[in-house]
Amino acid sequence: MAHEFSLINDIFAPLTQSYPSAFDLKDDAAVLSSQPNKDLVVTADTLVAGVHFFEDDSPVDIGHKALAVNLSDLAAKGATPKAYMLSIALPKTQAHQREWVQAFANGLKALQEQTGCSLIGGDTVTTSGPLTISITAFGETEQGGMIQRSSAQVGDHIYVTGTIGDAALGLQVRRQDSALKEVALSHNHRDFLLQRYLRPTPRLALGCRMKPCVHAAMDISDGLIGDLQKLCAASGVDAAVYLEKVPLSAAANDASAQDPKMFETLVTGGDDYELLVCVPPEKSKMFAQLSLETHTPVSNIGAITPKNKGVQVFSPSGELVHFAKAGFEHI
Amino acid sequence: MAHEFSLINDIFAPLTQSYPSAFDLKDDAAVLSSQPNKDLVVTADTLVAGVHFFEDDSPVDIGHKALAVNLSDLAAKGATPKAYMLSIALPKTQAHQREWVQAFANGLKALQEQTGCSLIGGDTVTTSGPLTISITAFGETEQGGMIQRSSAQVGDHIYVTGTIGDAALGLQVRRQDSALKEVALSHNHRDFLLQRYLRPTPRLALGCRMKPCVHAAMDISDGLIGDLQKLCAASGVDAAVYLEKVPLSAAANDASAQDPKMFETLVTGGDDYELLVCVPPEKSKMFAQLSLETHTPVSNIGAITPKNKGVQVFSPSGELVHFAKAGFEHI
Repeated sequence: MAHEFSLINDIFAPLTQSYPSAFDLKDDAAVLSSQPNKDLVVTADTLVAGVHFFEDDSPVDIGHKALAVNLSDLAAKGATPKAYMLSIALPKTQAHQREWVQAFANGLKALQEQTGCSLIGGDTVTTSGPLTISITAFGETEQGGMIQRSSAQVGDHIYVTGTIGDAALGLQVRRQDSALKEVALSHNHRDFLLQRYLRPTPRLALGCRMKPCVHAAMDISDGLIGDLQKLCAASGVDAAVYLEKVPLSAAANDASAQDPKMFETLVTGGDDYELLVCVPPEKSKMFAQLSLETHTPVSNIGAITPKNKGVQVFSPSGELVHFAKAGFEHI
Repeated sequence: MAHEFSLINDIFAPLTQSYPSAFDLKDDAAVLSSQPNKDLVVTADTLVAGVHFFEDDSPVDIGHKALAVNLSDLAAKGATPKAYMLSIALPKTQAHQREWVQAFANGLKALQEQTGCSLIGGDTVTTSGPLTISITAFGETEQGGMIQRSSAQVGDHIYVTGTIGDAALGLQVRRQDSALKEVALSHNHRDFLLQRYLRPTPRLALGCRMKPCVHAAMDISDGLIGDLQKLCAASGVDAAVYLEKVPLSAAANDASAQDPKMFETLVTGGDDYELLVCVPPEKSKMFAQLSLETHTPVSNIGAITPKNKGVQVFSPSGELVHFAKAGFEHI
């Protein structure tokens, strides 16, 4: 780490201990050894306090989320996480709070241990602005094995993992939004939604094994409908989505039953970090089997259609649904 | 680029055109193909406006510098630049200035073309704080070929490339510091120093070929003496440096002749982006030859000594020189 603060380096160095070529963060660079017949998949996501998380979120959660959103991209690309670089711009007040930095590192450490990847380097600087975390993550696939978002084909079934919209509601819980105040949710449901917002779980178990049965995939970070539009645009296709097939958690079901307008938030709000996967019909059975083996719930929400009128969303009564905004901008 | 702004993506996508596995920045990830019998060297540096550069520096220079400081690390590690990821947190005002972003991209483009590397991905977000640029750069070496900073040996000659301290004076020119106002420097000298601060040149020609004749190296980003202390600490050795051997430009010579106190700034100020190289005596001839072939001036400024009293700096009269601060903190 250039420009490093040695104190902070002492906190991060143990996160490299399974990776000798990170040189204990004592050099300016690390070595990513290449495996014969493998590709390295590289992705980067930056999180800014006040945009992608709240300044006063717990540092453990911030560390978890910063790594999780990057691993979610690797999962969608079919890549097994190996390593990551961490660049962090710390407000001076936080840079001097050893406990804060240690808790942030603990959040990273727990997730890297769960997922088998390692910190290998980065940079730490101070900023007069908000805490800014940039992670560049590396995963491995077989040669040519990265799942792209541009290769969806007409007729593909569209699947999503898990449930959709929990994090968008969790953000409202976190913000104490007036919209959600009018809805009576149990404490458990509120807490579930909040955790889904604060601690996304990258869908690695399924993602890393799904390449043989999928045409295209991406992770859902900016809203289901907006991200599906991006995948369709990249693939030169369109899609039909059936709202009643979009999987909801009990908590989200409860909220949208009380306030049907909530549905728009669920399918256009961000931070799901679930996978959006295009599976050719003849591979659906194989994909379902993989879902079982990896304990990853998946739901078929529609199909890829020829390029025509954009992504069309249908209500349970078969009517076209229009949204004011398909995509999502953070906070 | 997740969370991308499509406008900004349009500006950056042409920087990936020589790299098909960057997918025109239209996917969430890129593929770094592995070459048999090669290692990938990875380094990251983050620059923050108001810390590592001035907010109103020209965007072309900011783009150049953000990439140059990363390539300088690769040069010091003996790695040939291949690719880089760019994560940028833009203040909203700049995000909407297409011209600013285009000029910034032009600064990156010119340097990547000179050095044969390519943008392959990244992320663009907005921030309420200062412009923050994180680059993770990838270079290639033979297997096991990364030059470390921890392998200096007693007796090694210590070399530096180019001239030392120009950027530290250039920063004073940029700041219109009172210290430098009292020194009469020609317009040409002031401009030379300013350019050395604004547009560092990574020493790739020498760096990428020097592995066979060096024990250890790092780039000088935080001050010659401070960085030499870091290299010695990592290697478990000390060093003797002779001030009269430290190479100065005509401009720096002129300034320090007028104000001898200036010397401390030259050897402890930051942003040199020259190489600090430890060469065993028997390889000195080979290193000198390489310096000639690559048109890279090098100067022997001292030697590595057994661990004892730290890095010792000697004046021309043979006296020990003490500095208030060996290292450097940006701006």
